[in-house]
Amino acid sequence: MTEKTQREIHLASRPKGLPTMETFDFVEKPIPVIKNNEVLVRTLYVSVDPYMRGRMMDAKSYIPPFKLHEAITGGVVGEIAASNSEAFQAGDLVVGNLNWAEYTAVSEKDVRKIDPNIAPVTTHLGILGMTGLTAYFGLLDIGRPQKGETVVVSGAAGAVGSAVGQIAKMKGASVIGIAGSQEKINYLKNELGFDEAVNYKLDSFEDDLKKAAADGVDVYFDNVGGEVTDAVFTLLNKHARIALCGAISSYNKEEDSGPRLQSQMIKTSALMKGFTVGDYSADFAKGAADLGKWLAEGKLTYEETIVEGFENIPEAFLGLFEGKNLGKLLVKVADPTKQ
Amino acid sequence: MTEKTQREIHLASRPKGLPTMETFDFVEKPIPVIKNNEVLVRTLYVSVDPYMRGRMMDAKSYIPPFKLHEAITGGVVGEIAASNSEAFQAGDLVVGNLNWAEYTAVSEKDVRKIDPNIAPVTTHLGILGMTGLTAYFGLLDIGRPQKGETVVVSGAAGAVGSAVGQIAKMKGASVIGIAGSQEKINYLKNELGFDEAVNYKLDSFEDDLKKAAADGVDVYFDNVGGEVTDAVFTLLNKHARIALCGAISSYNKEEDSGPRLQSQMIKTSALMKGFTVGDYSADFAKGAADLGKWLAEGKLTYEETIVEGFENIPEAFLGLFEGKNLGKLLVKVADPTKQ
Repeated sequence: MTEKTQREIHLASRPKGLPTMETFDFVEKPIPVIKNNEVLVRTLYVSVDPYMRGRMMDAKSYIPPFKLHEAITGGVVGEIAASNSEAFQAGDLVVGNLNWAEYTAVSEKDVRKIDPNIAPVTTHLGILGMTGLTAYFGLLDIGRPQKGETVVVSGAAGAVGSAVGQIAKMKGASVIGIAGSQEKINYLKNELGFDEAVNYKLDSFEDDLKKAAADGVDVYFDNVGGEVTDAVFTLLNKHARIALCGAISSYNKEEDSGPRLQSQMIKTSALMKGFTVGDYSADFAKGAADLGKWLAEGKLTYEETIVEGFENIPEAFLGLFEGKNLGKLLVKVADPTKQ
Repeated sequence: MTEKTQREIHLASRPKGLPTMETFDFVEKPIPVIKNNEVLVRTLYVSVDPYMRGRMMDAKSYIPPFKLHEAITGGVVGEIAASNSEAFQAGDLVVGNLNWAEYTAVSEKDVRKIDPNIAPVTTHLGILGMTGLTAYFGLLDIGRPQKGETVVVSGAAGAVGSAVGQIAKMKGASVIGIAGSQEKINYLKNELGFDEAVNYKLDSFEDDLKKAAADGVDVYFDNVGGEVTDAVFTLLNKHARIALCGAISSYNKEEDSGPRLQSQMIKTSALMKGFTVGDYSADFAKGAADLGKWLAEGKLTYEETIVEGFENIPEAFLGLFEGKNLGKLLVKVADPTKQ
């Protein structure tokens, strides 16, 4: 290491509506000095995720908001650049919730070692990380798909949605994906084996969905909310289960209204539950073990969209709200020193 | 019996918006003749309930709609006027889902004998009938209030709501009722022992509710929906449970929109479940036994509003949507022949 300074991305202002480049501030800072039991992590990959939009607001929530004029934090895969911890040595690959920065100094407790020989390191930000666990617990604990039932997933070509559909297939359900481009529709049907896939951007969306879900909807895994969800609600079967994972259509709206859903839920005795993956932290080990097994067996596949360059993190994040990405969206910041 | 004809109330047209007197048709019909294993029931009390509004629409639902130009049906307490069944004899008091009519002929399987010595016969249309069971299962199976938690119930002075609050108190929760008049507020606080009661018709409602629920809301038993529910949603605690029993504010609206609730549910990992009491039919005996025990022990009290006269059934039903009634709303049609 010859650098003396490094770059961080700070929250410059709290966005109203859609974040813009002005939401972010690139700040040049000294490379942090580590204390006892700390490690210095050199960032290799940064995960950009829709939920981070929520942390940009100063609203009461159970995830604390990002602080203004401090580094934004999120899922990072990095390499130990320096260690004052007995548990880590330089060159170790780790994952953790770290700064959007080229280097982060953290307690040894805040990172976890990962083995690049078992699966590509990026999977720890995706299918074997929070993304995969989100799909796993939301679908299996809330949705509880049964053999022969119909499962609908919105945001189906995204990182979480594509895992949800594949796991639902393993459980014997018929799976319908909702996504926003023909490319994504093809991916869902041809590569992931979804039974049906419907493009919500077409005028015929409601009819298409109704045709695809001719037997009604038993489980709905919702990543998007809004009008897509309104359409799914008209098709709920008795005792439907709705796992609320995200509402990306609402995140950038200051006010968001729509038809009230309660009457439909009473008629169908439907269950709807919001969750965040942290609700299941006690069971992460089991979830990760199952996901790793399915991945190794080839039952679970995933797609990544990798943007190159630290300076492109904000733009990659903004792209999430345009529905550009297929699968997990990552930014590659650097190569590991050992290959 | 010397009457040869009797009156029935038929559905004359499917209402759009609020039902009116034109929704109903009084029809003079012969007293029905009973076949083998049938009984002729002379109506004593008719139950009028908000859920019946839903059956007036010709929409897909898991309760079939009322048929046009046929008698409306609902909860009835009556007296056996004639019997071709070994299980019943003239003078027996029964409860069942029968016609809005002075007489109904039904299979012996469609009525259940009730004992006027254990509790007033009207309780079988209220606290010991579908009303009490609705409160019991919605609160205990979906709401699952724990000691020290805060339970909010809307429509709190209604038949279901007043039972919900009392059962929640028995479970050690702090109970806040929402109702629409000072008379109802006084009833909830002074007679039913609710911890707090808030009038949703006051301009200060949102502030009043926030003050009453200073520790947030853990369980919400919703009978009304609409803006009352919007206000409760801003106060949900982590892992809140919402039992959707009714949405009376929506029933007479052709379109009903409001703020989307999903983001709040994700933040709080809230669970919301619609239900109808029929979902729990396998457990009715246990529910009725518990309710009867609590009633006998004086732990559970109830209020009835009794309108007199068969001809006043439609008006009583319409009054439900004006929030006039305290407790269970019944229409008395006749006295039993044996007193």
